[in-house]
Amino acid sequence: MRTKGIIVQKYGGSSVADPGKIMGVARRVAACGKKGYDVVVVVSALGGTTDELLDLAGQISKRPSERELDMLMSTGEQVSVALLAMALHNLGEEAISFTGAQVGIITDSTHTKAKIIDINTARIGKELKSGKIVIVAGFQGVNLDQDITTLGRGGSDMTAVALAKALKAKMCEIYTDVKGVYTADPRIVRGARKLDGISYEEMLEMASLGAQVMQARSMEVAGKFNVPVHVRSSFSKEEGTMITKEVKAMEDVLVRGVTANKDEAKVTVCDVPDKPGEASRMFERLAKADINVDMIIQNVSRRKATDISFTVPKKDLHKTRNVVEKAVREIGAGGVEYDENIAKVSVVGIGMRGHSGVAARMFSALASEKVNIKMISTSEIKISCVVGKKEADRAVKAIHRAFGLGKGVRKS
Amino acid sequence: MRTKGIIVQKYGGSSVADPGKIMGVARRVAACGKKGYDVVVVVSALGGTTDELLDLAGQISKRPSERELDMLMSTGEQVSVALLAMALHNLGEEAISFTGAQVGIITDSTHTKAKIIDINTARIGKELKSGKIVIVAGFQGVNLDQDITTLGRGGSDMTAVALAKALKAKMCEIYTDVKGVYTADPRIVRGARKLDGISYEEMLEMASLGAQVMQARSMEVAGKFNVPVHVRSSFSKEEGTMITKEVKAMEDVLVRGVTANKDEAKVTVCDVPDKPGEASRMFERLAKADINVDMIIQNVSRRKATDISFTVPKKDLHKTRNVVEKAVREIGAGGVEYDENIAKVSVVGIGMRGHSGVAARMFSALASEKVNIKMISTSEIKISCVVGKKEADRAVKAIHRAFGLGKGVRKS
Repeated sequence: MRTKGIIVQKYGGSSVADPGKIMGVARRVAACGKKGYDVVVVVSALGGTTDELLDLAGQISKRPSERELDMLMSTGEQVSVALLAMALHNLGEEAISFTGAQVGIITDSTHTKAKIIDINTARIGKELKSGKIVIVAGFQGVNLDQDITTLGRGGSDMTAVALAKALKAKMCEIYTDVKGVYTADPRIVRGARKLDGISYEEMLEMASLGAQVMQARSMEVAGKFNVPVHVRSSFSKEEGTMITKEVKAMEDVLVRGVTANKDEAKVTVCDVPDKPGEASRMFERLAKADINVDMIIQNVSRRKATDISFTVPKKDLHKTRNVVEKAVREIGAGGVEYDENIAKVSVVGIGMRGHSGVAARMFSALASEKVNIKMISTSEIKISCVVGKKEADRAVKAIHRAFGLGKGVRKS
Repeated sequence: MRTKGIIVQKYGGSSVADPGKIMGVARRVAACGKKGYDVVVVVSALGGTTDELLDLAGQISKRPSERELDMLMSTGEQVSVALLAMALHNLGEEAISFTGAQVGIITDSTHTKAKIIDINTARIGKELKSGKIVIVAGFQGVNLDQDITTLGRGGSDMTAVALAKALKAKMCEIYTDVKGVYTADPRIVRGARKLDGISYEEMLEMASLGAQVMQARSMEVAGKFNVPVHVRSSFSKEEGTMITKEVKAMEDVLVRGVTANKDEAKVTVCDVPDKPGEASRMFERLAKADINVDMIIQNVSRRKATDISFTVPKKDLHKTRNVVEKAVREIGAGGVEYDENIAKVSVVGIGMRGHSGVAARMFSALASEKVNIKMISTSEIKISCVVGKKEADRAVKAIHRAFGLGKGVRKS
């Protein structure tokens, strides 16, 4: 056992894409140990592996069993942890690798998107005590029947945060291929600025809204248990973005960042008869079909009928059509329209609580660029507008500018 | 639970080399279930996977930890079982896949060549009872600390035989890329004949001597527990070779088959002082270094010194040099010679027990081809001669002919 406490580090697939990069990760892990920390490393599958395995499964079955998919996919991380252990040994470090099952990451039985229900830290504790660096396969766990489960997209983040919480770690470091969390996607907005800090809540909204830095669910857990998270680059020593509880200084900032999500499609059900329960039945069915409905808009009804619009992930559009078209017939709605060429542009910031001016400033920024708003939805700390997909980047740039988020600009 | 009892089927890597072949295996497995058997399938890693994983490990470390190698290599079979389960589902069959750990294949902790010490069949029994086809990852198990272990080369055969024993299976079918066990390697001897039956003991010798049909250790276990084994082709419906206890009819056959092993090297330590214990010390050290010494020849000593020759697997020759050269200095031997260009040619047959003519017939066959014999070693049911590697095929052909083993020839 070293003295300074435990640090959990998580490395994504792009950080361990080949043996050379794995050696780089090993050096970084070893350096952290040398500073006096007990290190627990969570690793994703080697970049590309997941697609290869999915391709194999696809060649055999169009709709493979989810239990068997988990069995298959979990091998990816198992390869990574073994290779990283070898790389650390090569540097003269003591290290030992584990699958999710072996370190007692117990989940429910929802294959392909299981939830962690408990972590038994006995084995990790024992190995840390004996001075070893502990390497844990991300993304995976095991249910009470010992069936292997996986935690869904970005699940390695969840493994890292949950381990950090269970081990009372000093810090959960998320290593990724970007330098931290930005005010907007730097590939779209040239002047986007890396944030030094952001609150759990803001990060959760930004993650849900399309900032692909961290998995949204893991952010929720980090916030709930107050696990300090540091998002930083695997390829640089620079500090990244600290994600912590809401702090006083943060509240001065009106808007933390702008995001764009181009992976959703809009569905509009026209002339829904204005009878209580009609709409709810349709959404119940969508939920049962495991379709994640995002924005839902219903306006006041005219002539005893109303239009209902909502967005769904584009990949679920096919499933959605089946459910919705059945519902349209049953409830006697007028028809249904689909629009895949949309983007959801959002601003996020704790500071906008109780500030009515934010929406107005956002809308006027869009108006000045002649971007037409198709849907609007708000929460306490975010405002989202659906716009045409082609206009998304222009919209993000205009909003980023309107709130003065860029480099060399005052912060609010 | 079906009524006819349990059949364990094992498919090697070449039988599941790609999705198309996996579908073929699934059809064969399903057909067996349709006949009324409970089927337990043991699968190896997809052909080629093992080499790819070893290559990855090799890029990271020259001497990877054996625990981590097992962690890495065991993913290969895990991929196979998941894919085979998907393929069976696709055919409308109920099937479920398991790792070695999940079905309680408990081994000792000798990583990379662990021995099975127990199998807890509870989970398999439960799934068979519910009508499912059970698929088990071959080659792997788990020690009492839940660390993943592997069973060494050909370990999937061991998994199959051990499961067949534990489940009291009616039959253990070993599917491979050849049609059964032959009187000699059909690639070398054109007239080689497929055997209908062979005894455990004979098969054990043949496997040890280079017939790559089945792992020798698993043959030992099959014999010990009297597990009926059927070696047959994954690509044909033809019956293969039944391996059973020695039966009366078998004893009429003098020689069952001829094998050649070209994977050994000969080491000769010259002028070893004729003091008790000198040689044994050297072999103890070789054992400690995990080197499998095969034939050992020591002749009567002349002038208080003797020459000792033995064979080792060629892949261990480097390790062997280190041990032997140290020993030569310590015991004051005259020197050491190595010969990699050898082959061990053997005849095997229960019938040769008490028949002194076999050795003579073998030697004269070699003499007639002018093949020089470098070493001779015998057991109750086999005779092995080390010859020059270049002469091996000619030697095998001559012996095969001398014992009348070919097609259309009377059987002894």
